[in-house]
Amino acid sequence: MVGFDGDDTLWHSETRFHVTQGEFRDLLKRHVPDADVDRRLAEMEMKNLSIYGYGVKSFTLSMLETAIELTEGRIPTSDLEVILGWGKGMLMEPTELLDGVEETLRLLSGRYDLLLITKGDLFDQEGKLARSGLGDLFLGVEILSEKNTDSYRGVFTRRAIKPEDFVMVGNSLRSDVVPVVSLGAHAVHIPYEVTWHHEHVPEEELPNEGWQRISSIRELPAILDEL
Amino acid sequence: MVGFDGDDTLWHSETRFHVTQGEFRDLLKRHVPDADVDRRLAEMEMKNLSIYGYGVKSFTLSMLETAIELTEGRIPTSDLEVILGWGKGMLMEPTELLDGVEETLRLLSGRYDLLLITKGDLFDQEGKLARSGLGDLFLGVEILSEKNTDSYRGVFTRRAIKPEDFVMVGNSLRSDVVPVVSLGAHAVHIPYEVTWHHEHVPEEELPNEGWQRISSIRELPAILDEL
Repeated sequence: MVGFDGDDTLWHSETRFHVTQGEFRDLLKRHVPDADVDRRLAEMEMKNLSIYGYGVKSFTLSMLETAIELTEGRIPTSDLEVILGWGKGMLMEPTELLDGVEETLRLLSGRYDLLLITKGDLFDQEGKLARSGLGDLFLGVEILSEKNTDSYRGVFTRRAIKPEDFVMVGNSLRSDVVPVVSLGAHAVHIPYEVTWHHEHVPEEELPNEGWQRISSIRELPAILDEL
Repeated sequence: MVGFDGDDTLWHSETRFHVTQGEFRDLLKRHVPDADVDRRLAEMEMKNLSIYGYGVKSFTLSMLETAIELTEGRIPTSDLEVILGWGKGMLMEPTELLDGVEETLRLLSGRYDLLLITKGDLFDQEGKLARSGLGDLFLGVEILSEKNTDSYRGVFTRRAIKPEDFVMVGNSLRSDVVPVVSLGAHAVHIPYEVTWHHEHVPEEELPNEGWQRISSIRELPAILDEL
């Protein structure tokens, strides 16, 4: 069985956040030219993570709160309306697959059982999967509020998966590699062009074995054949 | 196997929305005394449902948009900050169980396999379950973005549940009774004091059999014994 992360492994996600954050920075700079908008937004997101969880709606609420706080309430309502609109725009965007995803998944679905294991907002993730056209290639879908050892263990138990028969594929060392390898399964890391700071893992905390890195999903079939 | 809805079946939920909506109405009336705030908010929620889905974050975003639209942007930013705070408050509230829930679930968990089948925001629902202290009584948890015939069929397939061996218990005719009965399973309806208009079902669309109504979860063990 092969598990796939969704965001930034199968389809672009962080880029959406990155672009919107750039627009947000420009908007706020007009009111508070000297503010470190990115740092303040990142702090707000971390502060709100335990209340809101991941996803676009959480990001939108944190942008609104940051905008009000940074301008000490001086931001006009029309600008807040613009921010609300960005959030909706992100949620409605078509799912844009990464290069090689569709061909590779079609090839692999004939050889392995494929599982989508993604984290974030349930409604948004289901929408992205539906719009991706890949839904039928997966035996099952697991949308988790957080990807850690406990939540992966839960998936293994629910689906009677033996860790030694399982390979997880994803772009995040923190969410797709470290917890999976610690449970005795194998992981394949495919870095994405932009990684959210929150997902970084210091080199010294990476496992020595049980995982490998490739630069494109197109290399995956050969890797799986070898395992 | 017995499935339980969460919101307004095991723990209070709609009351939280109801109270906040009252505060929202009072806040907006100060700016637009003649506005039909409840109707406009309900329309906004329906308009946004296909983009945001259910839950407190969606509700908060819809309140903000309604406030800006209804006041034509004249609402001060400090009031929008208050609305953001209400959303956070709702998400952090302790889970308040309905009368008789804990005793009844403890009793039933010795006799049946219990499943929590709830809809809404993944992060919020997991938080409520964790804070409820009831987590250990359930064999499994299914958080769905929408409860309809297809999503229940999915649960039955995933968990190898035969409809004739399954009873669903919940407060919503639309989400907990109609789709379940249409699949050949049994349903028990426990009305809650406040029901969101969206969950109403016209009498003529209710199934004639396959379900019954009780007024308290305390009556459930006797009902299940009879089935």
